[in-house]
Amino acid sequence: MCANSQVKSSDAIASLKYNDDGLIPAIAQQHDTGEVLMMAWMNQASIEETLKTGRVCYWSRSRQAYWRKGESSGQVQMLKELRIDCDADTLLIKVDQTGPACHTGRRNCFYQVIEGDNVVIDAEPLIDPAELYGK
Amino acid sequence: MCANSQVKSSDAIASLKYNDDGLIPAIAQQHDTGEVLMMAWMNQASIEETLKTGRVCYWSRSRQAYWRKGESSGQVQMLKELRIDCDADTLLIKVDQTGPACHTGRRNCFYQVIEGDNVVIDAEPLIDPAELYGK
Repeated sequence: MCANSQVKSSDAIASLKYNDDGLIPAIAQQHDTGEVLMMAWMNQASIEETLKTGRVCYWSRSRQAYWRKGESSGQVQMLKELRIDCDADTLLIKVDQTGPACHTGRRNCFYQVIEGDNVVIDAEPLIDPAELYGK
Repeated sequence: MCANSQVKSSDAIASLKYNDDGLIPAIAQQHDTGEVLMMAWMNQASIEETLKTGRVCYWSRSRQAYWRKGESSGQVQMLKELRIDCDADTLLIKVDQTGPACHTGRRNCFYQVIEGDNVVIDAEPLIDPAELYGK
């Protein structure tokens, strides 16, 4: 059940299928509970930084800048494991998330659920976003 | 913990942030174990079909066609829940996956893990792909 593919990590990271903007989607999953926390984008340099430092760094498409998770809010994401999918176009990162992963103050970003004809919000903020970002 | 947002499901689906190709990423998670199985793309019509039929339908970017999961392999994905993230640009679908979700015959697509300098493959196919697609 455990084969070494003889592929170097650096080669695998370099040959990921980045999109036209040089980005690849990364799904962040809480390592011990399996909760899917969020999805964000990384470029090659942010992946390399994440692997080097052990703290998750994304690329913010809205800000066009590195996004070291928690740099404003203090709610950091530490890397436990980085996985690559079969097509090398998606990452699954197992993380240890401090507090809320979502900018709304919720633990995860997927709090809107389709229930028949209506959308239901089934999670409340752990922390008021004003408190998270008002520092 | 359970607020009705007064948003209609049809309006929420119509106003998702689709990319320039009209697509949105959908993370498929096995509903009972929390295993992240795969990530693929949907357009508005494939989301509507998935909600209507209860069987997951993606949009295949490589084939430029609807991709009713399991149509070739028999390994269908039934929808349990559809969630929308805070930015309305990613879906999390909780599913019940028959057999392998991955075209390699593995249960999930994320079988390549970075371990230091090397990439390790830590899952074996449940079914030989030749058997899955050779029918």
